[in-house]
Amino acid sequence: MLFHVRMDVAVPRDLDPGERATLLANEKARALELQRKGTWLHLWRVVGHYSNVSIFDVDSSDELHQILWNLPLFPFMTIAVTPLTEHPSALSANP
Amino acid sequence: MLFHVRMDVAVPRDLDPGERATLLANEKARALELQRKGTWLHLWRVVGHYSNVSIFDVDSSDELHQILWNLPLFPFMTIAVTPLTEHPSALSANP
Amino acid sequence: MLFHVRMDVAVPRDLDPGERATLLANEKARALELQRKGTWLHLWRVVGHYSNVSIFDVDSSDELHQILWNLPLFPFMTIAVTPLTEHPSALSANP
Amino acid sequence: MLFHVRMDVAVPRDLDPGERATLLANEKARALELQRKGTWLHLWRVVGHYSNVSIFDVDSSDELHQILWNLPLFPFMTIAVTPLTEHPSALSANP
Amino acid sequence: MLFHVRMDVAVPRDLDPGERATLLANEKARALELQRKGTWLHLWRVVGHYSNVSIFDVDSSDELHQILWNLPLFPFMTIAVTPLTEHPSALSANP
Amino acid sequence: MLFHVRMDVAVPRDLDPGERATLLANEKARALELQRKGTWLHLWRVVGHYSNVSIFDVDSSDELHQILWNLPLFPFMTIAVTPLTEHPSALSANP
Amino acid sequence: MLFHVRMDVAVPRDLDPGERATLLANEKARALELQRKGTWLHLWRVVGHYSNVSIFDVDSSDELHQILWNLPLFPFMTIAVTPLTEHPSALSANP
Amino acid sequence: MLFHVRMDVAVPRDLDPGERATLLANEKARALELQRKGTWLHLWRVVGHYSNVSIFDVDSSDELHQILWNLPLFPFMTIAVTPLTEHPSALSANP
Amino acid sequence: MLFHVRMDVAVPRDLDPGERATLLANEKARALELQRKGTWLHLWRVVGHYSNVSIFDVDSSDELHQILWNLPLFPFMTIAVTPLTEHPSALSANP
Amino acid sequence: MLFHVRMDVAVPRDLDPGERATLLANEKARALELQRKGTWLHLWRVVGHYSNVSIFDVDSSDELHQILWNLPLFPFMTIAVTPLTEHPSALSANP
Repeated sequence: MLFHVRMDVAVPRDLDPGERATLLANEKARALELQRKGTWLHLWRVVGHYSNVSIFDVDSSDELHQILWNLPLFPFMTIAVTPLTEHPSALSANP
Repeated sequence: MLFHVRMDVAVPRDLDPGERATLLANEKARALELQRKGTWLHLWRVVGHYSNVSIFDVDSSDELHQILWNLPLFPFMTIAVTPLTEHPSALSANP
Repeated sequence: MLFHVRMDVAVPRDLDPGERATLLANEKARALELQRKGTWLHLWRVVGHYSNVSIFDVDSSDELHQILWNLPLFPFMTIAVTPLTEHPSALSANP
Repeated sequence: MLFHVRMDVAVPRDLDPGERATLLANEKARALELQRKGTWLHLWRVVGHYSNVSIFDVDSSDELHQILWNLPLFPFMTIAVTPLTEHPSALSANP
Repeated sequence: MLFHVRMDVAVPRDLDPGERATLLANEKARALELQRKGTWLHLWRVVGHYSNVSIFDVDSSDELHQILWNLPLFPFMTIAVTPLTEHPSALSANP
Repeated sequence: MLFHVRMDVAVPRDLDPGERATLLANEKARALELQRKGTWLHLWRVVGHYSNVSIFDVDSSDELHQILWNLPLFPFMTIAVTPLTEHPSALSANP
Repeated sequence: MLFHVRMDVAVPRDLDPGERATLLANEKARALELQRKGTWLHLWRVVGHYSNVSIFDVDSSDELHQILWNLPLFPFMTIAVTPLTEHPSALSANP
Repeated sequence: MLFHVRMDVAVPRDLDPGERATLLANEKARALELQRKGTWLHLWRVVGHYSNVSIFDVDSSDELHQILWNLPLFPFMTIAVTPLTEHPSALSANP
Repeated sequence: MLFHVRMDVAVPRDLDPGERATLLANEKARALELQRKGTWLHLWRVVGHYSNVSIFDVDSSDELHQILWNLPLFPFMTIAVTPLTEHPSALSANP
Repeated sequence: MLFHVRMDVAVPRDLDPGERATLLANEKARALELQRKGTWLHLWRVVGHYSNVSIFDVDSSDELHQILWNLPLFPFMTIAVTPLTEHPSALSANP
């Protein structure tokens, strides 16, 4: 099941530099892990923004929430979730 | 070069049914053609909306404009274009 | 899997009265059918609006899209879809 | 009388950890208490947000205000209240 | 129970003049009737707008919906409903 | 002359508790005084918000500004002012 | 008493040309009459818009409403009304 | 050349009181100076807001920018600039 | 004097095709004429929109209004005007 | 390839004055460097705002992102990116 997720990041200026570095490293490690599992299907940077557009492939919206809620950067992100489905003009629907 | 495009469709109620059918068939044919070429990289339906979220892979923003402007449904769509770039935490950037 | 759906209805004034009556009867029959199946879990009217707030319990977001897209009033509704999950303070999570 | 309530939570980063823990425990206890009484009829988490969608069943809007105003997290929440009524296509209206 | 209601009216230009006159007369008669009953507690015109701000005193939000839904101008109004309660600094709370 | 005023209050968390208590007591005293004079004609709490909806009866918009600007909570409020006039369907206009 | 008023005009395309010409002539005559009386204190065109920004000097908000409601173009305008008062740094307040 | 300017002021609470007093005195002096020169043509307070609506008469938009950018309160204001021109129904255009 | 102008075009579907063709030809001719004069300094198409972003170099905002108001497509455009000035980091300011 | 970029700057008040001066000097140096290379094609100040409107000429949206992300003021700017293309009525398209 596919979900379109946009995350806008705003890490506070006064966060301890060490804490920030750890946070970003953990976020990256988690993103790579979820991409390798095929859950975080696509991950793009939005030009000119500290933001990403992502596509998640999950078994349920509950699973999606668990993933997002536990991202290291979750407390510093604004997240917009949009459920997707197969488009009738997509190649996959017109083999 | 990747662009994120959302298209919201609003075909007028009073459009001639034959014209509408032709329009939709042409739009679908064009979408399939561009997907087969690899230009229209992803095409998803937004749940509960007559809308799609798409990813285009083009050589330039000029090429993207030519594609969008000439879509059969262009006069009946509201389009939002967002340029994307590789995310530093994407698999492609961390081989 | 639960989804929160708000539907705002705007049936055009110039719709043929017979067509309107059929449309509304079909919409009501479909709403009752889906409620009896347990898919359309809750259906409330918003006070002062030709709108409803609904909770759907579906197996996938694809199923939700098929339901919404095929509602008789779909062409005359603006729909907002919000995925829900169990709240950690809900009774169900604290038996 | 039913009210649809959405609460978006934003606990300040600099809140004392002990105070935060107490606050969250009190909020949870109160939510469970009101659910057991049948006043807080439904409580769902919004996927990807520190937010809930709730349905309250109260005797009056005054009662609803007393409940919301006295929630432990009230000072840290943005709340939207929407009055609901029975939908003419609901099962309850079509026995 | 008090509700604050704002109604913005937009009667279509092409409405039959006789139908329009009847509609407005019926709306006025209904507004006067509900004011005399004490249900439509206050009714003010917004300066420069075809709009009113009203206060309703009803037994329930269900009653409010029945009143609003059946106003003759309902199909031509955008309505915003806000539940009110006694203010702790109001005279009524500080006798 | 009537004005509809909505005030949304946001007292900063770090305000000295004594200063806050004095501020709130002064605000309440002033609200009661203006209500007793008939200037602050109505004062309601918005359900679920630290906000009020008020009706002021003043001799001029200048008088209204002097009142609002000098409210103890003025620096911590967002205020929306809407001029009102008699509605042609109000009882007062249809004796 | 001063009010700031912005009027955005949208005359429908299908209005009878004669009716349109009469309407615009009447609107202009009324604007000139009110300016000569000193009621319509200032009247400016917004660059690039079919809109004006105006300052009205009236005895009451009721008078302002009567003026605006009876403007020939009223049915085709969106109007925003903002009450003004003397600024403490204005020349008039610092003679 | 006329420009309509709205300035919304938000001086931070933690600004040093002496610095604040100096800032406000300088702002007032500058406003009076520019009014005496005929550049700051009108200056009104918006009722219920720490805001003004102003009309500037300048030789160029560059001159307007120099004026606004150098106002003592500039760092604490949100400014909206709207170019104006003579209205065809203004007295000045209909001598 | 430079102004940034965005024009969003929405020609009605039911415009007579001959009238539309004439309109577009006249608009193009006028755009070329003003570009050749150096008044319409830049003219770009917004990717995916029937819109342009333009820079005008005019002697006054009055001149800009005369130009925009008399564009053949003016009745079918939404226009946003933003005055510009030299940037202190521009090459022109740092020769 | 052209992109329209608007940058709104908000440097925090509590930034160390030396750090601020260095930041601004570096930003200016970088802006001049990119203008001299022909990449930052146009740079204008928005009248009354700490903002610029810019046109970038880059080989790809990826290049644009690298430029924006590495601007010294990037952490303190809100950026809006709009891809542009040649307008069919531009001089360049009508030699």
